[in-house]
Amino acid sequence: MELRLSERVRRPDFQGDFLKMILRVAAAGNLVSFAGGLPNPVSFPVQELAEATRSVLSRNGERALQYNNPQGYEPLRQLIADRYAKKGLAVTTDDILITNGSQQALEMIAATLIDEGDAIVVERPCYLAALQAFHLFNPVVRTVELTPEGASPEELQTILERDRPKFFYTVPDFQNPTGLTYSEGVRRRIAQAILRSDTLLVEDNPYEELRFKGEASLSFHKLLGEQCVLTGSFSKIVSPGIRLGWIVCTCKPLWEELLGYKQRVDLHTSVFGQMVLDEYLRNNDLESHIAKIRDLYRHQAEVMLDALQRHFPEEASWTRPEGGMFIWATLPAGLAAVRLAEEAAKEGVMIAAGDPFYESDRNVPTFRLNYTNSSDEVIEKGIAVLGRIIRRMMAESGRVGA
Amino acid sequence: MELRLSERVRRPDFQGDFLKMILRVAAAGNLVSFAGGLPNPVSFPVQELAEATRSVLSRNGERALQYNNPQGYEPLRQLIADRYAKKGLAVTTDDILITNGSQQALEMIAATLIDEGDAIVVERPCYLAALQAFHLFNPVVRTVELTPEGASPEELQTILERDRPKFFYTVPDFQNPTGLTYSEGVRRRIAQAILRSDTLLVEDNPYEELRFKGEASLSFHKLLGEQCVLTGSFSKIVSPGIRLGWIVCTCKPLWEELLGYKQRVDLHTSVFGQMVLDEYLRNNDLESHIAKIRDLYRHQAEVMLDALQRHFPEEASWTRPEGGMFIWATLPAGLAAVRLAEEAAKEGVMIAAGDPFYESDRNVPTFRLNYTNSSDEVIEKGIAVLGRIIRRMMAESGRVGA
Repeated sequence: MELRLSERVRRPDFQGDFLKMILRVAAAGNLVSFAGGLPNPVSFPVQELAEATRSVLSRNGERALQYNNPQGYEPLRQLIADRYAKKGLAVTTDDILITNGSQQALEMIAATLIDEGDAIVVERPCYLAALQAFHLFNPVVRTVELTPEGASPEELQTILERDRPKFFYTVPDFQNPTGLTYSEGVRRRIAQAILRSDTLLVEDNPYEELRFKGEASLSFHKLLGEQCVLTGSFSKIVSPGIRLGWIVCTCKPLWEELLGYKQRVDLHTSVFGQMVLDEYLRNNDLESHIAKIRDLYRHQAEVMLDALQRHFPEEASWTRPEGGMFIWATLPAGLAAVRLAEEAAKEGVMIAAGDPFYESDRNVPTFRLNYTNSSDEVIEKGIAVLGRIIRRMMAESGRVGA
Repeated sequence: MELRLSERVRRPDFQGDFLKMILRVAAAGNLVSFAGGLPNPVSFPVQELAEATRSVLSRNGERALQYNNPQGYEPLRQLIADRYAKKGLAVTTDDILITNGSQQALEMIAATLIDEGDAIVVERPCYLAALQAFHLFNPVVRTVELTPEGASPEELQTILERDRPKFFYTVPDFQNPTGLTYSEGVRRRIAQAILRSDTLLVEDNPYEELRFKGEASLSFHKLLGEQCVLTGSFSKIVSPGIRLGWIVCTCKPLWEELLGYKQRVDLHTSVFGQMVLDEYLRNNDLESHIAKIRDLYRHQAEVMLDALQRHFPEEASWTRPEGGMFIWATLPAGLAAVRLAEEAAKEGVMIAAGDPFYESDRNVPTFRLNYTNSSDEVIEKGIAVLGRIIRRMMAESGRVGA
């Protein structure tokens, strides 16, 4: 039999191939890994979730194990809406849709908006799994350069006018992969440009609450209302393994389509997981739990920044995140991060080379470092190894540094 | 702002609109419902799942709450493969992919195979949520009449030759909506036709183990090997709310594409849910649990069949399932089931009129009755109400019966 796959899956998947390669090398085991984006497991409320499960099943077992509605468990949606209300966002229970992690949220948004050949805009660089999800629908992907203040409003404005994209996808707080955060000024200028256009802004905000420095940001949703679709996740503040994220969409017709799509693709998200999480949130102080994670990640970020200062050559540079999970480093001119990644893997240190975070740039000098899932000692050791290899690469390429 | 939705979601969704209507009426509450396909909650192993969760989180909490791989938790995949092996199917752990219920399995299979305009074949009538998932990819849907012995091999053969469909979707055991089961002879003739073609057979088998009469069926997978993609679910034997299903695909290149697609749409299925279920399955006797469900459903089916015999006019007919959850009834000629559904809803009895189970037939005389989620008394009362309304409809249309 001849296997006849859909064009959808036959299209090249650069981001996916790159990820698979990383996973294959990682499977070799016993590595220093700065490549992934894993939360630190010491932050998982294991005991509390066990207690929440016992309580849900003893009081409400039938409901937790039966089919449920596609929009999600109402008390959990209410709880999410209430947390936004406390931050001053006009969001109600009816605006929330529960998803299997925020990856599904991105796929659902793309599915309801993108026809083949439609333009969308993303940051350059962009979260790679978002690119993967969007590419399923074969859009024309435009990119806007990400500066330390955020995406360039001028470049975005030009694209909005020229290409009339379906949406602009952004991670405005502690962006993945760069760790950068949009300034309030840039947010306001981008919001003005969006409001003059027919383009939605997709605000992906999984790291928002992991701010360990500076002041809380102004949400695009506050500036844009129903022209902003907001996504969030419990992955970084409670557990990624339980796969619970959400969409906030105050544009009712779009919310209805997202709901219809969700029902078609998997009926609904595990109500067992939703009720366990809801019970946990009601019986524990989430804010003090998040505060502990923030303290931990602040410390780990400082340890990595300090190690970078000591081990990396001065020709290299890197971002100094105010929250989230990532530092974005840039090699001295002329060096490629894929090469660094290969050499480092041989010495047991994994990094995420920048290439798959770009729609089309290749052999870039940038790479992503995750600091949340390594001990102080591992961070020190791994950054030292990377520093040594970079100096060697510089020497080989005829530069100074060794 | 003008909302510009994708064509995908703007296409009419007859099945979805119908479902929404049913759900709206059901929300009115306090009804006799034969409309859904809910397992009986007395069959949910509530205490056992609570104990499994406690055990998983105390021994292996970090793993249960961290990110995992897209194919699913390996011990659970192994367990599924072992159960197939016991039934004589050549299936290994590596052939299994865990999904968010078998609805996601159907969507994933459709996504990896269907390009717009491709032909697929389904049974007439067909499981409505499968039609909904397939329509996302805009195929040309051919249908094969379902007889009491299964889909017509001759009709299928003609379509295979003429349209070269990407796949034939079938629920061969206790089909949804009809409750019918393919005979071994029809299975063998269909398998022969498939083997001569470039068409895959998708064997959707969520009810397989709920056989309460007769002998176990011959799986299409046994006859077709890698030309058969098999889907299964824990929804009907443990819990639907936990959303755990699977795909068996021994065609490696297709398995790889399914895996890549799964990763793009939601990274992976809740590993918390997977590990809890795995732990439950290892510490409890699933076969005796299923035997209890079978006994319960056998009894409920008998109660409903008996009530039909007493309350329905002799001009009506219905199937006599050997397992599963549904009876498929046919009204006397000239009467439409949508009309019966409307009248019955007014008296608090819900049925699923046949229309949304057909790709294009409308105002059909057939409807689906679910017997698994109602007490003996409710079944008796509901069928009596339906019988009365049918006789009234017959009288109004000038037929006998009242």
